Amino acid sequence: MFTGLSAFPFTPVTGDGVDEAAYERLVARIAAAGADSIGALGSTGGYAYLSRAERARAAELAVRAAGSVPVIVGVGALRTRDVLGHVEDAQRAGAAAVLLAPMTYQPLTDDEVFGLYADVTANLSVPLVVYDNPGTTHVTFTDELHGRIARLPGVASVKIPPVDADPGRIARLRSLLPPAVTIGVSGDAAAAKGLLAGADAWYSVLGGVLPEACLEITRAATAGDTARAGQLSDRLAPLWTLFARYGSYRVVSAIAVRLGLIGEPGLPAPVRPLDEDGRRAVDAALAVIGASTAV
Amino acid sequence: MFTGLSAFPFTPVTGDGVDEAAYERLVARIAAAGADSIGALGSTGGYAYLSRAERARAAELAVRAAGSVPVIVGVGALRTRDVLGHVEDAQRAGAAAVLLAPMTYQPLTDDEVFGLYADVTANLSVPLVVYDNPGTTHVTFTDELHGRIARLPGVASVKIPPVDADPGRIARLRSLLPPAVTIGVSGDAAAAKGLLAGADAWYSVLGGVLPEACLEITRAATAGDTARAGQLSDRLAPLWTLFARYGSYRVVSAIAVRLGLIGEPGLPAPVRPLDEDGRRAVDAALAVIGASTAV
Repeated sequence: MFTGLSAFPFTPVTGDGVDEAAYERLVARIAAAGADSIGALGSTGGYAYLSRAERARAAELAVRAAGSVPVIVGVGALRTRDVLGHVEDAQRAGAAAVLLAPMTYQPLTDDEVFGLYADVTANLSVPLVVYDNPGTTHVTFTDELHGRIARLPGVASVKIPPVDADPGRIARLRSLLPPAVTIGVSGDAAAAKGLLAGADAWYSVLGGVLPEACLEITRAATAGDTARAGQLSDRLAPLWTLFARYGSYRVVSAIAVRLGLIGEPGLPAPVRPLDEDGRRAVDAALAVIGASTAV
Repeated sequence: MFTGLSAFPFTPVTGDGVDEAAYERLVARIAAAGADSIGALGSTGGYAYLSRAERARAAELAVRAAGSVPVIVGVGALRTRDVLGHVEDAQRAGAAAVLLAPMTYQPLTDDEVFGLYADVTANLSVPLVVYDNPGTTHVTFTDELHGRIARLPGVASVKIPPVDADPGRIARLRSLLPPAVTIGVSGDAAAAKGLLAGADAWYSVLGGVLPEACLEITRAATAGDTARAGQLSDRLAPLWTLFARYGSYRVVSAIAVRLGLIGEPGLPAPVRPLDEDGRRAVDAALAVIGASTAV
């Protein structure tokens, strides 16, 4: 479950809650494509913006729509008490694992981050993926902190930020983590590089809307086909450019609209949909990569 | 209300909710000291960690305990929908104004930050204080963005980060804000400098536990007594050092314990109380400034 492609579906929100039919379609489509796991309610799934009830419901829907594909459910919150509530809901919904980022308001010390994982793993009956995402949490995980946390009971994998500037990090981390703990990369633009540098998994934003394209890259890279993995990733360069410019969260929402998977952008205010220029750029990028007829 | 000393009480939390008796004592003590306003549920008030019900209840308690001193209530949340809920609760509780920081998970564009304030001010019947706190929100307000937001209806004041490195910012901002909008500084260590550079208000963390000491600084600075304001602020240097080292949120919690105002540190996990060394350093600092018998 913690190797290969883990695809993260976008969660389309409405004024009232989650667009349940659209969300189930997105999840089912990823499962049908053959992803190795589904990461529900990750950053791409907008977990940080949803109420406890909305998150519990989305977890249920994801598990149902995923069929036999294991679902990893995001349980992060600013307060440990709330994280434990989300863990309870995720487990009740049938999550195969949980994903935990140390959200912050007050900056946290390393000991506080470790304490969060210690408190949560002490109350867990499924495996946990450590979610290292400094762009949203503003927590910088040192390799040493990863090593401490990964030795807690139940930790199965770590999801690390892009390693394009330092692919050697994977080998360094490997030496600090228990052998059974897998390393997964995020940052789609550098995912092929990360997999080729030895990562076990790709925790993927784009995989939520273009699972086949991401599976192709994953299969080539894990087979060690450097040339083909690089080629397939480079083909998606117009999307990586848009991710960097507008943020992948807004862009995948626009892609999902363009592909007819959701009706409205479905982003929670204050996050706003792409403007007209942005939407045109998404259309152009999809046309270049030949994905506009992918549905 | 948006000038002078606005003191921000710490909100002591327990496993079950807010320690209501201790919170009322903290607020009443600030009011008795003669603060110009009380900033309930600011960062120091831990708003980001509390549930909607806990926040609504704390707002009620603060208004009641503050008597005739106006209470500004923090209404920030990651999602606009939730901010509007907190606004409703704050207004119902009798808040004289609301304080809004643009909390973030996904980084927000300037237009998204502006849109948040536009949506909230369109639904407001009390004045609003713009809360610019990059250390917790990771939003950088340009002077231009402050100018745009301050022209929205109902904006009464802006709370800006420390200006010690650039006291000229106050004059620059002044030229961009409507004349009725006041400028308040935060960052206690540089507050005297900010007030002397022309700020109208000090939105103060330390004022929540040592209101008299902060009022003395405020009165000296607003009277233009540069020497005395500087002297009074320098006297508190041991505390400014601890704020920088441990974060003011943890330190004021420890001060409140040491002064017998609260029984337990009352911090929401994953934030942890100061360790033994930190508590000893707080004791030593309070002894140096002669505040250990201040109650």
